[in-house]
Amino acid sequence: MKPIPPDSVGLVTPARLRFAEPLALASGGVLADYEIVYETYGTLNAEASNAVLVCHALSGSHHVAGYHSADDKRPGWWEHHVGPGKSLDTTKFFVVACNNLGSCFGSTGPASINPASGRAYGPEFPMVTVGDWVASQARLADRLGIRRWAAVVGGSLGGMQALQWAIDYPERVAHAVIIAAAPKLTAQNIAFNEVARQAILTDPDFYEGRFYDHATEPRRGLRIARMLGHITYLSDDIMREKFGRGLRGGKLNFDYQVAFEVESYLRHQADSFVGRFDANTYLLMTKALDYFDPAGAADGDLAKALAPVKADTLVVAFTSDWRFAPARSREIVKALHDNDLNVSYAEIKASHGHDAFLMRIPRYVDIFTAYMDRVFAGLSS
Amino acid sequence: MKPIPPDSVGLVTPARLRFAEPLALASGGVLADYEIVYETYGTLNAEASNAVLVCHALSGSHHVAGYHSADDKRPGWWEHHVGPGKSLDTTKFFVVACNNLGSCFGSTGPASINPASGRAYGPEFPMVTVGDWVASQARLADRLGIRRWAAVVGGSLGGMQALQWAIDYPERVAHAVIIAAAPKLTAQNIAFNEVARQAILTDPDFYEGRFYDHATEPRRGLRIARMLGHITYLSDDIMREKFGRGLRGGKLNFDYQVAFEVESYLRHQADSFVGRFDANTYLLMTKALDYFDPAGAADGDLAKALAPVKADTLVVAFTSDWRFAPARSREIVKALHDNDLNVSYAEIKASHGHDAFLMRIPRYVDIFTAYMDRVFAGLSS
Repeated sequence: MKPIPPDSVGLVTPARLRFAEPLALASGGVLADYEIVYETYGTLNAEASNAVLVCHALSGSHHVAGYHSADDKRPGWWEHHVGPGKSLDTTKFFVVACNNLGSCFGSTGPASINPASGRAYGPEFPMVTVGDWVASQARLADRLGIRRWAAVVGGSLGGMQALQWAIDYPERVAHAVIIAAAPKLTAQNIAFNEVARQAILTDPDFYEGRFYDHATEPRRGLRIARMLGHITYLSDDIMREKFGRGLRGGKLNFDYQVAFEVESYLRHQADSFVGRFDANTYLLMTKALDYFDPAGAADGDLAKALAPVKADTLVVAFTSDWRFAPARSREIVKALHDNDLNVSYAEIKASHGHDAFLMRIPRYVDIFTAYMDRVFAGLSS
Repeated sequence: MKPIPPDSVGLVTPARLRFAEPLALASGGVLADYEIVYETYGTLNAEASNAVLVCHALSGSHHVAGYHSADDKRPGWWEHHVGPGKSLDTTKFFVVACNNLGSCFGSTGPASINPASGRAYGPEFPMVTVGDWVASQARLADRLGIRRWAAVVGGSLGGMQALQWAIDYPERVAHAVIIAAAPKLTAQNIAFNEVARQAILTDPDFYEGRFYDHATEPRRGLRIARMLGHITYLSDDIMREKFGRGLRGGKLNFDYQVAFEVESYLRHQADSFVGRFDANTYLLMTKALDYFDPAGAADGDLAKALAPVKADTLVVAFTSDWRFAPARSREIVKALHDNDLNVSYAEIKASHGHDAFLMRIPRYVDIFTAYMDRVFAGLSS
């Protein structure tokens, strides 16, 4: 393999913690006992004041940066932004990232064995909300000796967790960094999620969520869900840039094999997703997105919902993001302003669509880094 | 039933014509023998100069206006625009609409019996292009004694046919009315079509297109395709207007039953589509859309591709249409202008998205009617 770049956190090893105390969930369900897998990068200072929590999005995990082995083809999903000298500078901050409950990368989820039955949870795994995740992350913080985060940071569904943290634990969040997020989903967002879910739920290999017992998985449904997801992650412009109307074989084939480059891309994305992502997790994650609506509990008034917040906030949006458009980020900014909070807002010109939050875009890097420098400067003050 | 409104063409009966002469297709395939189902409204004048062809979109048919029986719950799909006193005024014009080859409402298509084999065509039905349809419509015109259309009119995929008519038969088209169309699909448009196709193609009940022989159909795939289609037909705004984040039962149910109103809408649309639409037709129609690209044969130069056109043209786009956005219509307008042709362009403010072309929107009706009045005035000059 090629050598690990010097601005990477390098080889990292996930850690695991068991929580034997029951976690009561928004749905009314309870997780009696669960495990959380997490990674940390950097060193927690003596005052435990330099910890930053990174929250992941739908298909993300605790593996945010670095490599699990020297043979790893790819680093963690936010390698562009986490490491020595990067926006989340691991020479300054102690960065923590966990895999959310219900996900499929090591923390307790639908594919885990339910101790009550001795078989995989499957459909018995309770629905989890953004608020549930934040509560479970707070317990993780307790175990790690982190009373207060210097910052809670996330993109997309991860940004929703950062916002929820600031609402639910105002004393424990100094700064929230909310990137490419929205205060709630639109009807169109929910509609896309519903089509993805229907594809999975109606796949004959879904077996009402018990596919583990049948040694199969709803590959067809998960493929459709992932293809659809990718359309919403990219802008029309970047699709044109990347694929245009390019023909795979140079000419029309008049059959249902791949004709256009974009079809090849989608099929590849879909095929590589199947086998590494759990269909029940996909269902749970999309429901957590649909249900996220802090204003819902405050008569639809987002400013009222954000009244408990004390954190300073950086909100970042990307011009070509049509999944969570800049206008949605500005709703958050306005509601924070209405509460006389310190808010920085950056609307980054980018053609990449929603996926821009994963990219290394110079202006995005500059603003994110400058903000985190301020966070760090504030630690000693 | 309630009485048929006086501005309807009333009770109509489809007609059918058999074409025994082989039709050579763009794919290299040949249809040796086929039937076309069509409807006509109004009266062809002595000079046969007042005929208007209406071309249908993906899921449309020859049943454009009126009722098939006194018990019909719904009139034809363009009842708002075709009838006595309407934009396509049937007291003035002889309106013709056929079901396209490959469709499933009576013209020869994948569910028809292949005379060569004695069983349903299924996957043996050749792929058809917009150009193939236009050629078959020209033969229909010949049979009906229509040498030259006063206008060829269509929305969406129907608008593409109107444009293709003007290119392929410049002497036979006096006016083209191209509504909510595009000169070709974007990568994103193709991507949505591909997800829909994959849902159908991977449905175990698809049987490689031979589901007729198994007395079943790929319901699951067709449902997903239709739900996805509906998302792209509506704007984000109209979805918000119609559904917002309304909860079906007033509260979150924490399961995968319908939670939000928009989910209920999509499932209903999907369920009512299955059983009345053929999955092989869905595949063919989306491919005809993907392949449409008149500029492709002219080095990507749309103006060059439109050089043969002689028709005057009305191009109509709707502000909230993100499937075929106004910018796409303006590409057509520009290319027609570049050829020094007479073009009228109207960008109608409407929140309905792509579906607006089916609606009765006052400004749209006014512009369409005024244009058709001009077409009619030109007949006697």
